[in-house]
Amino acid sequence: MPTMLGVLEAALYADDLDAARGFYGDVVGLEVITAKEGRHVFFRCGATVVLIFRAEATREPPPPDALPVPPHGAEGAGHLCFSVPMAALDDWVDRLTGAGVAVESDFRWPNGARSVYVRDPAGNSVEFASPKLWDMPE
Amino acid sequence: MPTMLGVLEAALYADDLDAARGFYGDVVGLEVITAKEGRHVFFRCGATVVLIFRAEATREPPPPDALPVPPHGAEGAGHLCFSVPMAALDDWVDRLTGAGVAVESDFRWPNGARSVYVRDPAGNSVEFASPKLWDMPE
Repeated sequence: MPTMLGVLEAALYADDLDAARGFYGDVVGLEVITAKEGRHVFFRCGATVVLIFRAEATREPPPPDALPVPPHGAEGAGHLCFSVPMAALDDWVDRLTGAGVAVESDFRWPNGARSVYVRDPAGNSVEFASPKLWDMPE
Repeated sequence: MPTMLGVLEAALYADDLDAARGFYGDVVGLEVITAKEGRHVFFRCGATVVLIFRAEATREPPPPDALPVPPHGAEGAGHLCFSVPMAALDDWVDRLTGAGVAVESDFRWPNGARSVYVRDPAGNSVEFASPKLWDMPE
């Protein structure tokens, strides 16, 4: 099997990219790598890049003079989980609620890991959990 | 800002979970962590877990006696990119095409990084690229 390093990009969709930038950039604190008005905004997050696309734009095939990036685009609530240390979860709850983001769910799994769920402005389900959830080190 | 380690889970949707298991498990070679018939199959992929959900099931709110996992579920083609070494991309093309998966696009970005795109059985756009694409080390 050829070498696999991990997930390089995880994608979600949002109609309002300014609101997405406010959430992922300002509230969650991710660094914006690049953005294209009306199409996307991308954020660095550890070894993975979080891509927020406007599906209406990314469902269009690329023009003939552009790189042949295949179209995609989904409707409805997607899901993403951020990896954070267990000891930082209370601070994340404070950070999110302090920014006006309601916690939708906050509980412990059978293995002791804790998950905190919020919604991004587009309604995607965004979770903050310790990698312990999947038996990975922090 | 509280500590952020990276992306713990990236999610895509598929109506046919057996086909998803064949693609992500058998062809891409990811280890299945857990699966629930008719609802999901999860795979380990480096420091991230790839979640494949059947949206019809995950859009249902959890029953009162279950953990309060918020519902989500999207329709249409999503996107995921796997991080692989640049030198392994030819082997990935051989692996994918040998398994009957057509390469939809294969090109180099302005910074020299190469991306190979296929579709998973549900039609999601799945990319294989070197982390050099985002100026990250292999």
